[in-house]
Amino acid sequence: MTYELYYWPGLQGRGEFVRLALEAAGAAYVDVARDVGGMERLTALMDGADAARPSFAPPFLRDGEVMIGQTAAILFYLGGRLGLAPTDEAGRLWTHQIQLTVADLVAEAHDAHHPVGSDLYYEDQKDEALRRAKDFRETRIPKYLSWFEKLLARNENTDHLVGDALTYADLSLFQVVDGLLYAFPIAMRRALDRAPLVDALHRSVADIPSVADYLASERREPFNESGIFRHYPELDG
Amino acid sequence: MTYELYYWPGLQGRGEFVRLALEAAGAAYVDVARDVGGMERLTALMDGADAARPSFAPPFLRDGEVMIGQTAAILFYLGGRLGLAPTDEAGRLWTHQIQLTVADLVAEAHDAHHPVGSDLYYEDQKDEALRRAKDFRETRIPKYLSWFEKLLARNENTDHLVGDALTYADLSLFQVVDGLLYAFPIAMRRALDRAPLVDALHRSVADIPSVADYLASERREPFNESGIFRHYPELDG
Repeated sequence: MTYELYYWPGLQGRGEFVRLALEAAGAAYVDVARDVGGMERLTALMDGADAARPSFAPPFLRDGEVMIGQTAAILFYLGGRLGLAPTDEAGRLWTHQIQLTVADLVAEAHDAHHPVGSDLYYEDQKDEALRRAKDFRETRIPKYLSWFEKLLARNENTDHLVGDALTYADLSLFQVVDGLLYAFPIAMRRALDRAPLVDALHRSVADIPSVADYLASERREPFNESGIFRHYPELDG
Repeated sequence: MTYELYYWPGLQGRGEFVRLALEAAGAAYVDVARDVGGMERLTALMDGADAARPSFAPPFLRDGEVMIGQTAAILFYLGGRLGLAPTDEAGRLWTHQIQLTVADLVAEAHDAHHPVGSDLYYEDQKDEALRRAKDFRETRIPKYLSWFEKLLARNENTDHLVGDALTYADLSLFQVVDGLLYAFPIAMRRALDRAPLVDALHRSVADIPSVADYLASERREPFNESGIFRHYPELDG
């Protein structure tokens, strides 16, 4: 079965959390808009009059007859199928809970450069962004990293967030750290120095052969200023 | 089995989505901080050195040995147990996907009055809030309501979001509509006039006997300016 991932082409965005899980597991998938120019299919599935369960926004995943939107729900669905989640219910929910907290951090990383509205240009909300980014750097990033650090320290294996094996939560923590290092290199380096287990996880995930292959491939879009993690030097410090 | 809900006392907040599910189903639960003054227990479970799976923030739920945080994950866990979700996997995930989109709207409703930082006072970010609330009222509320209206129109039974019976997604849509009517009475009334099925669902959920009993009880905190949905008249219009 080939999974079909639907997401905007040209940026990592929230789709990247799904791509990383698929790539890490070596799953067969098509990134429809990226690989086969399928923007019309994306739009039809989201806005078409016959879409029975249309997503509010990409990413969404098609697996045969099943359509799932919302990044965290997609990963919950894929986790068991790709061997990237525990098999017991409590463990699966704990992995999901961590993913949902990563999603909260991702939303805040977006709003650091778009505090007024996602439909407005950055330049039209730069004053507000300067204030919000300061709060994000000084209060929110350290608070989230401290929580992830605590989870790693308390887990049976400090190389992983959950249990003794790789889960999509590890992949997602890698991705949000990677994005924040791109967007806020000064503040994030400082924060990681106080979260050595998070820092180590970021490096070890990048070294997983399937992940390393993906990151070095053309399938990995570079970070850019169309995505969630944007490097505006005036917002860092 | 009595569920234990942990949430800040004195406000509805995100805990209210869990309360509504428990109350609608007539489940036995203790709202620990509210009912038994258990703020120390809440703090210990979240910040204590021996908490194996500490939540980033309330609400979290305890069911015997199982601890779950993140509102949507709690509802996913409770949905099947309380008869408030479909039994098939695709239906359960679809209900969850809707809940996650409600959660996105809830986060935006919060940021309408706190666009710079959740740890700062409203008064210290009022200029930014005036801009963000305008975008929220004019762009975001209509976009979300239009999506919910579409889901109701395409469902087999337009009285419900999923299938032919009440789910926690219906309860959560009721709650976010109720909160937005409190916070933005002018803008939300206007938006609901264009989303008649959402408007009808809001009224019909309030008429469910168990929900009506709860809403009339002292257990239902009134909306207030400590919660997510805050009525600042200058932000409405």
